[in-house]
Amino acid sequence: MDAEEKSLFSAIPDVSEQTKICVLCHKESTPGIVEDWLASRHSKITPDLAIKKPDLERRVSSDSIPEALRSVAVGCYECHSQNPSAHKDNFDHFGFKINVIVSPNDCKTCHSVEVGQYSLSKKAYALDNIQKNPLYHTLVETLTSTKEIEGNDIIDLGSSENAKLEACYSCHGSMVTVNGTKKISTGSGDIDVPDLINWPNQGVGRINPDGSRGACTPCHPRHSFSIEIARKPYTCSQCHLEPDVPGFEVYKDSKHGNIFSSKQHEWNWDNVPWRVGKDFTAPTCTVCHNSLIVTEDNKVIEPRTHNFGSRVWVRLFGLPYSHPQPKSGKTYLIKNKDGLPLPAALDGELSTEYLIDKDEQMRRQNVMKKVCQCCHNTDLINQHFKKMDITIAETDKMALSATQLLLTVWNEGLEDRSNPFDEMIERRWLKQWFFNANSIRFGSAMGGYDHIAFKNGWFQLIENLQEMREMIDVKKMLKKME
Amino acid sequence: MDAEEKSLFSAIPDVSEQTKICVLCHKESTPGIVEDWLASRHSKITPDLAIKKPDLERRVSSDSIPEALRSVAVGCYECHSQNPSAHKDNFDHFGFKINVIVSPNDCKTCHSVEVGQYSLSKKAYALDNIQKNPLYHTLVETLTSTKEIEGNDIIDLGSSENAKLEACYSCHGSMVTVNGTKKISTGSGDIDVPDLINWPNQGVGRINPDGSRGACTPCHPRHSFSIEIARKPYTCSQCHLEPDVPGFEVYKDSKHGNIFSSKQHEWNWDNVPWRVGKDFTAPTCTVCHNSLIVTEDNKVIEPRTHNFGSRVWVRLFGLPYSHPQPKSGKTYLIKNKDGLPLPAALDGELSTEYLIDKDEQMRRQNVMKKVCQCCHNTDLINQHFKKMDITIAETDKMALSATQLLLTVWNEGLEDRSNPFDEMIERRWLKQWFFNANSIRFGSAMGGYDHIAFKNGWFQLIENLQEMREMIDVKKMLKKME
Amino acid sequence: MDAEEKSLFSAIPDVSEQTKICVLCHKESTPGIVEDWLASRHSKITPDLAIKKPDLERRVSSDSIPEALRSVAVGCYECHSQNPSAHKDNFDHFGFKINVIVSPNDCKTCHSVEVGQYSLSKKAYALDNIQKNPLYHTLVETLTSTKEIEGNDIIDLGSSENAKLEACYSCHGSMVTVNGTKKISTGSGDIDVPDLINWPNQGVGRINPDGSRGACTPCHPRHSFSIEIARKPYTCSQCHLEPDVPGFEVYKDSKHGNIFSSKQHEWNWDNVPWRVGKDFTAPTCTVCHNSLIVTEDNKVIEPRTHNFGSRVWVRLFGLPYSHPQPKSGKTYLIKNKDGLPLPAALDGELSTEYLIDKDEQMRRQNVMKKVCQCCHNTDLINQHFKKMDITIAETDKMALSATQLLLTVWNEGLEDRSNPFDEMIERRWLKQWFFNANSIRFGSAMGGYDHIAFKNGWFQLIENLQEMREMIDVKKMLKKME
Repeated sequence: MDAEEKSLFSAIPDVSEQTKICVLCHKESTPGIVEDWLASRHSKITPDLAIKKPDLERRVSSDSIPEALRSVAVGCYECHSQNPSAHKDNFDHFGFKINVIVSPNDCKTCHSVEVGQYSLSKKAYALDNIQKNPLYHTLVETLTSTKEIEGNDIIDLGSSENAKLEACYSCHGSMVTVNGTKKISTGSGDIDVPDLINWPNQGVGRINPDGSRGACTPCHPRHSFSIEIARKPYTCSQCHLEPDVPGFEVYKDSKHGNIFSSKQHEWNWDNVPWRVGKDFTAPTCTVCHNSLIVTEDNKVIEPRTHNFGSRVWVRLFGLPYSHPQPKSGKTYLIKNKDGLPLPAALDGELSTEYLIDKDEQMRRQNVMKKVCQCCHNTDLINQHFKKMDITIAETDKMALSATQLLLTVWNEGLEDRSNPFDEMIERRWLKQWFFNANSIRFGSAMGGYDHIAFKNGWFQLIENLQEMREMIDVKKMLKKME
Repeated sequence: MDAEEKSLFSAIPDVSEQTKICVLCHKESTPGIVEDWLASRHSKITPDLAIKKPDLERRVSSDSIPEALRSVAVGCYECHSQNPSAHKDNFDHFGFKINVIVSPNDCKTCHSVEVGQYSLSKKAYALDNIQKNPLYHTLVETLTSTKEIEGNDIIDLGSSENAKLEACYSCHGSMVTVNGTKKISTGSGDIDVPDLINWPNQGVGRINPDGSRGACTPCHPRHSFSIEIARKPYTCSQCHLEPDVPGFEVYKDSKHGNIFSSKQHEWNWDNVPWRVGKDFTAPTCTVCHNSLIVTEDNKVIEPRTHNFGSRVWVRLFGLPYSHPQPKSGKTYLIKNKDGLPLPAALDGELSTEYLIDKDEQMRRQNVMKKVCQCCHNTDLINQHFKKMDITIAETDKMALSATQLLLTVWNEGLEDRSNPFDEMIERRWLKQWFFNANSIRFGSAMGGYDHIAFKNGWFQLIENLQEMREMIDVKKMLKKME
Repeated sequence: MDAEEKSLFSAIPDVSEQTKICVLCHKESTPGIVEDWLASRHSKITPDLAIKKPDLERRVSSDSIPEALRSVAVGCYECHSQNPSAHKDNFDHFGFKINVIVSPNDCKTCHSVEVGQYSLSKKAYALDNIQKNPLYHTLVETLTSTKEIEGNDIIDLGSSENAKLEACYSCHGSMVTVNGTKKISTGSGDIDVPDLINWPNQGVGRINPDGSRGACTPCHPRHSFSIEIARKPYTCSQCHLEPDVPGFEVYKDSKHGNIFSSKQHEWNWDNVPWRVGKDFTAPTCTVCHNSLIVTEDNKVIEPRTHNFGSRVWVRLFGLPYSHPQPKSGKTYLIKNKDGLPLPAALDGELSTEYLIDKDEQMRRQNVMKKVCQCCHNTDLINQHFKKMDITIAETDKMALSATQLLLTVWNEGLEDRSNPFDEMIERRWLKQWFFNANSIRFGSAMGGYDHIAFKNGWFQLIENLQEMREMIDVKKMLKKME
């Protein structure tokens, strides 16, 4: 090891011999991620020290850490060599058995509580939930299908794996499989690597080559795994964007978002636990939905959860109507009274068997109210939620009205119900709940009022219904004239 | 008072005994706002000291401060106990007579000049201006009305108070009234509180339970009342957003906005007065529209105003055409030559009696030019405004063309003029001026050029007119075929 | 010179006597730009010192600097007095011969390499490319034409110079000409100044009064000329915005953009050269497209270029289909096999003669891969580009399908092919490639996946095609019924 190399590792307490070898080579081949890791907490502390932190400050949640990992920094080799026999993407890399993909099951070694919680969430099943649900699967296929023209007709050529991978699975996750190995040319010469299918992908419901579900990197991106990045709404924004799930835009346009945008530079984004009023002065996505937040004197307001959605009582995201949160993250198991894989029937009746009950809803609302209570009085919070209840009811009503028009369309044979997403009026119905009604409900919940009015708000909600009505008249006339 | 409590107040010079009691309890019940206040200027200086600052640095504008408030920090009790007899929302709260809502009339105690200016602005009458103007009232009702389906027909169920509260009144303000008291369950047991109607609401034209108009908190949010937040465009963005009033997006996409986004971290956001080139290096919303700005050696470029709009000579926001700024903030008083409550007739003739005259327009343009002059030469500024004049004329022409098509629609009985906002072609007419023409004018005024071209710009302005034309043909044919 | 003046220049090593005179007056008349310059690098270093920096750190690229400029700071006079005989905008200004506009040809004195590179780029010809190409010229005219109504007909009044100046030429640049001089009233009395036509304008392809092409100020805005601003994506966003070229939004919504938004405050935005992992931890627009980037130990990953586009092998921006980058910045010279000034024929056949060949494409892809390689392994990069290839093919197919429908429209006489952009179905065709197909390709290239799915993505790509189909049916029926 030359002087430069010594200097490189001098700031790092204990690096394994394997990781040193990784770093010395990857400092040349992929310098950015090495720098990223060098700046990370993983490079600066050993699990042994991390696990001894006071409870509220602990970022390592496992009760114990395997002996071999305890006293070295969390480096390349430590993460990329976990559970090799489970990893179909494990390969011999210059003498080391390396997994290409570090999966939640690997992160679990130190972060078992978070991985355990995540595995219960809808996120962990985000791919299953759109693949195994035949209706959503049809939606995915329909929304990404290439077309060609024959004469005057649009011919559906179907949806490629690539289109699905880039459109829907980019957030929902792909099933990454391994098709043997292949030789690739690199700066270090030709090497054999696993031939990964449906890769790259960082979706939250990714099914990994070790069979695990989920990905930690969408929110904790490689290789700094910075809690600051995970806590910033920009990160959530990669998937939670308008027009379908306008979480980020609604937040950004709310008073809470205004304060975040204006004052974030003074916040302490790295502190664990996160102190209300001291480390942050307005809620962000994670403050309400998953962070451990405490008062200035360390009283716990809410514990950390990585079961996203578990603090929330209602699912604003209508399918096609809003509904109580599902009991299980596996929403593909849900059936409505008509046998369709939806949490509500077309007439609005809920699939209650699969959804949390009123008591659980109230319990969760009280959890959420504790967060609001940091800054708002009880009556203001109660009234805020009452407004939201009315808005939910009214937007569901508007979605139901669209459904009623759609039923007419089907009953009169103007469009064909076999695929409810592929014809023009059907797509307006889809917009009604998927874009407009959702947007208004998100706006109401988070106080992003422009999204209630003019940004996929009431303006579009009403206009869309009128246009459906008009399209029916035109379709009828076209049919009559045929 | 125990050691912790002593330490809490040690950094604060003089806190009233009442506020101490508030803080000690609310530190438990609503810790975030207490921290926010502790970080605020209000907690760090007494009015007595604040009023003695040199003129340009003064943030307190009243000539004198009531004796009782002079020598204590501006705490919970000082603000929430003002003018109790005027406050229908005053209630007994653990032995203190507390107002739930602190109104501009209360802030006026120390900030009389700002409140006085604000009370003249359109903002102060933002609710009146859409409620008392029958045409705009119809627009509000129409844009937020729930619908149901009967057979093939869309039935209008009217607009709920809640929908209006969340959509239009969220920015314009609600009328907050008090319906006696009610008992609520809190962390401190059951307590009696005023039963507020149309609450919560932070709209700029809110009518408060003390009868005052307006709200300071949309721009100076509780409880830091930070001038940094008020000055940052994010705060203006809560209401001034596309598609109807795209001030924020146009600014963000302009060169001025690029510089703000890139360099804001080096600006001095708290300095009073605000020094051009030193404290900020590009205009923001408030630089042009209301801040006190000075040169590096404290020469005043523009004095502060809270009469928003008073530096502006033209109202780009067409109703349905752009027009000179109204003389009074009470725009609901305006009538056009046909008796409609609009600043222009449908044929474009202005309601000049209610609008500022050419001289006043030129005076205000010169005020605005002084801001531009900080960085731009006279000829560039003159030419910029000339471009804008042409753009205003052309977009008004395009709105007029839409009106002419609408008149045809009405005259031929294709749609019904009794409500000009509720049918399909009427809504396209609304879009023409409310979204597209406005957007282009904002883009021209502030140099956000994409909004002139493709983002509700000329592209949509022309397309919308063409679609109106096409809809007329289709409607005619549908009528013929009936 | 009084004490204040002495203090003003004390921080600046060597200011020319001429610049001192400029500053002393402009400190009064335009204080903001003087402050901006005082904070700039130009005021803090002489070219003599700048040119002696080590190669990688040099910001001055000319081999030698004219004697007169070498030992004084780069001040007002130094820039605004260059090449006066070439400048039709040169005028006598209080005894000095001053150019209003500093052009790339002036900046070239010190920054010759950058100006040389820029002069080869499409940016330098951005105005020519839409003015001298008759098809794009028609598009410009069509998109900005004012309309009036006669009876039921929309009458085209043509496009004003002003509308083009504000819409298209704001990014593409205007031809700034000089129409003699005029007298204007300023704070310093009436003065004679050049009468500039098509001014102000900061478009990248501006044709300047000295005959040079381009503008440096869109990215290096006056008068700080900050490299930080030039490097920040906000600056690129002024032109590269949805719906037509959604570079900024796609980036912002990508993982790279998330990291930029979250961590930019810790980056070193001013360092030259720019060190991957040290100065920045995620790519930005300039990292990939033009900055000099090096490793932590100063190994060059990519040299700086101001020939924007020269690292890129494919032009995602379809006209109407994506194609290899053009060989020359003068794209107006391109003709397709049918004689149309397009890089592809309507049937998709490429105008290969004008486009870079496969070898050059591969060379450039390898350049770009070197940037990716900083943080990603070879296989991931290869697979990323393979996905992109498929997406390009599929979206071009979808644009071709729209073209096929358009040909039907023309062949059946439903719309008139003489202007392919002015009728309703034609405009849908335009949207298909100009907005939707482009957006998906940008999304694929940069990992902004919402733009592949729902934001001018597959959702709109398919819907638009369906709507074209429907419009054909309606148009046919309307024709039949005439």
